[in-house]
Amino acid sequence: MFILNNSDPVPLYKQLYNQIREQILTGKLPADSKLPSVRHMAIELSASCNTVDGAYQELFAEGYIYSRPRSGHFVSALDRDVAPQTTSGKPGKCDYLPGPPSNFTYDFHPARLDPESFPTELWRKCFVDSLRRNSQQLVQYGDPQGDWGLRCSIQSYLERSRGVLCDPDQIVICAGLQQSLDIVSNILKESHSVVAVENPGYHLPRSVFQSHSYTICPVPVERDGIDLNALKTSNSTIVYVTPSHQLPLGYVMPVANRLALIEWAESGGKFIIEDDYDSELRYHGKPIPSLQGLRPTGNIIYSGTFSKILSPALRLSYMVLPYSLLATYRQRYRDYFPSVSLLEQRTMATFMVQGHWERHIRRMRMIYKKKHDILLRSVESHFGTRAVVIGQGAGLHVVLMLPETPHSEAEILDRALQKGIRLYPFSDFHVNDQPEVTTLLLGFGGMNGSGLEHGTAILSQIC
Amino acid sequence: MFILNNSDPVPLYKQLYNQIREQILTGKLPADSKLPSVRHMAIELSASCNTVDGAYQELFAEGYIYSRPRSGHFVSALDRDVAPQTTSGKPGKCDYLPGPPSNFTYDFHPARLDPESFPTELWRKCFVDSLRRNSQQLVQYGDPQGDWGLRCSIQSYLERSRGVLCDPDQIVICAGLQQSLDIVSNILKESHSVVAVENPGYHLPRSVFQSHSYTICPVPVERDGIDLNALKTSNSTIVYVTPSHQLPLGYVMPVANRLALIEWAESGGKFIIEDDYDSELRYHGKPIPSLQGLRPTGNIIYSGTFSKILSPALRLSYMVLPYSLLATYRQRYRDYFPSVSLLEQRTMATFMVQGHWERHIRRMRMIYKKKHDILLRSVESHFGTRAVVIGQGAGLHVVLMLPETPHSEAEILDRALQKGIRLYPFSDFHVNDQPEVTTLLLGFGGMNGSGLEHGTAILSQIC
Repeated sequence: MFILNNSDPVPLYKQLYNQIREQILTGKLPADSKLPSVRHMAIELSASCNTVDGAYQELFAEGYIYSRPRSGHFVSALDRDVAPQTTSGKPGKCDYLPGPPSNFTYDFHPARLDPESFPTELWRKCFVDSLRRNSQQLVQYGDPQGDWGLRCSIQSYLERSRGVLCDPDQIVICAGLQQSLDIVSNILKESHSVVAVENPGYHLPRSVFQSHSYTICPVPVERDGIDLNALKTSNSTIVYVTPSHQLPLGYVMPVANRLALIEWAESGGKFIIEDDYDSELRYHGKPIPSLQGLRPTGNIIYSGTFSKILSPALRLSYMVLPYSLLATYRQRYRDYFPSVSLLEQRTMATFMVQGHWERHIRRMRMIYKKKHDILLRSVESHFGTRAVVIGQGAGLHVVLMLPETPHSEAEILDRALQKGIRLYPFSDFHVNDQPEVTTLLLGFGGMNGSGLEHGTAILSQIC
Repeated sequence: MFILNNSDPVPLYKQLYNQIREQILTGKLPADSKLPSVRHMAIELSASCNTVDGAYQELFAEGYIYSRPRSGHFVSALDRDVAPQTTSGKPGKCDYLPGPPSNFTYDFHPARLDPESFPTELWRKCFVDSLRRNSQQLVQYGDPQGDWGLRCSIQSYLERSRGVLCDPDQIVICAGLQQSLDIVSNILKESHSVVAVENPGYHLPRSVFQSHSYTICPVPVERDGIDLNALKTSNSTIVYVTPSHQLPLGYVMPVANRLALIEWAESGGKFIIEDDYDSELRYHGKPIPSLQGLRPTGNIIYSGTFSKILSPALRLSYMVLPYSLLATYRQRYRDYFPSVSLLEQRTMATFMVQGHWERHIRRMRMIYKKKHDILLRSVESHFGTRAVVIGQGAGLHVVLMLPETPHSEAEILDRALQKGIRLYPFSDFHVNDQPEVTTLLLGFGGMNGSGLEHGTAILSQIC
């Protein structure tokens, strides 16, 4: 017997559907039993034929009942053992909202940007402009390699500012380094299996290449970048480097080593992945030109990002593939789809074409230079000779070596936490070994001047 | 000898830098030759010391010269054989803009949306609102699994409309199916190696799993979905299915088969990937509830997208991971970054919270039902009994079997092209075999009523 309730907000046909479905699933209505005809059921329930017909149609569409011509509807045979769970089996309900993120008075995150720095109003204008121009383009998939206009803007910016010489055809728009490396891993894996990475170095490339079953070969970093002799004696055929601002140590690879690295790559079809993640941010002199520009036709995969200057939350980056990889890339990714929203790509293109991007870089360079200088002054006045600063003059962080401290990194991180200071382990950058002396990573991008001063003062007391 | 030109827009220090660099690279200034002191060079050039110092600092920073305390600056030793190419070696210059995309009078693309349908004004409002609220959040990386607010909105939508029962904790925001499948491939690859796919079926899953070195096992599709007996005798431990609207044939898997499929998965830790790509679009009766809802605690990975209703260009999709995979997912992707822009995620969350999403679905369902009906009427009046229509009543395309045509698919596609009609090969959905009769895929989302009528009329003449 089924009961329909007119005051229930659930539509009548749905109420009937639910009740019949429940009886089928619990076995009360066995397989092949005949349901009353639509007309009879309607009379029985004092409901309209439409109501009953609606319920039957849904049950039929989902396979709970079947129909025989001129005979009516019958219950389908279901495997009782695997009957579906009712809603009581539901894992949990979302009636809670996320709490606020953990707060620290001083957060030395190495890649946090200035919280007031996002160009909200300009971005809004560029977005609205690109939305209005492109709303008809939103109904289809775009170019998997990225919007052509944005690629042209990036090409001309890279040539002017980074000495990268390429064609927009070589540029792939990506949603961050991890995606670029995923693509590179994929297109190189047929003939390569060992990747050299800097040690200490960024964890992400290790992680991505490992997930593609590559062997990771950590190579020490010297004051002039990755150790070329160690690289040569390894059996790596791909190397991931950060030549313009080594992550995390901040060293610049001199041109002689760059040329030697290019020579290494050219002897035997090896590949260099140049990650030029934050080279816009140099506070003394001009940015170091790219390695790619030294040999535009070489086996160099150049990677750049908008994360360090504009926003890491936009997930917008790019890479420049050498001509030798373009055919494989296209063949492999032809049937794929773009990974970045067309609206965001067009917004960025508009932002660049209107000159906002390069103005924004100059503005950010001034903001971060100020923070950088405050941090260095604070370190000098509070740590004095107890600390050796490495990697200053660029980027969003410096490295502090503390040869005299009695504390390990873990102890300092823990002591800092108790004082409301968040530090990020430098040791995460090391692959198998550990730094010889306790070393701290101090990001300054997200903090204001007084935070940098006070944070450093407190740090100096606990180190 | 160096010459500085005051009327050149290039800054003086940069002119000097360029000239010295050129001489070093061409060997005119040999290794270890001493450069004049800053003061002497300044006098020689009638320039300021700052100009010369600026040039020397840049050359030094890039490693072209080195300095010895109290001796001055010297040219570094560079490997001449691999000296960098000058800008004349540049591959090409971007002084051209992209041409318009190829145009067809009638484009039967199977996943194109109505060109007037994007809710531009509402999207603008939601975007501006989320930009203003979140501009301070843009300076940091967000949750790699996706914005919590959007996950809550999706959870509640899925429960209400698709019968999917899950917790926002299980939802991962992705930039499209290819990324979801990349993640799934990664976290399952240690204990799985054979994936069953529907045949005919969507090419993307085959391609993604293949790139992760899985073996692909094509399983025939019957009128009640994937052939379960064939699946059971295969040695697959993962299956990719489209149970609510089989792609491309449009069949619905009845509940008995769904339960049997769930049972298959539960016997031995196998996994079902349920791709629910367009189930919002059913034109008769309510959408078919998800397979996941029949067994919310089962080994079912549910995938959904905003591409078919809102826009494929936004690259916004989601998947629901079973609890059994969450730990592996988090462990593997903890150090990764989100793949979708925070602004876009928040815009979508606002769009959903304000009720626009469900209103938009209802609006689109009406628009596409109209187009669907026009297409079916046109096929009936122009093809009559020459065509058998499959998969009607849902989605953005129907399938047309042409048992009597003397032409092959390739011939028809070619003849169509000459008449300004773009068709997409149905045979691409087949893995190793070919359809027994010539079969066409007719997408109707992107065309208007008269385009559908005329396009079908012309098609009927050339088939």
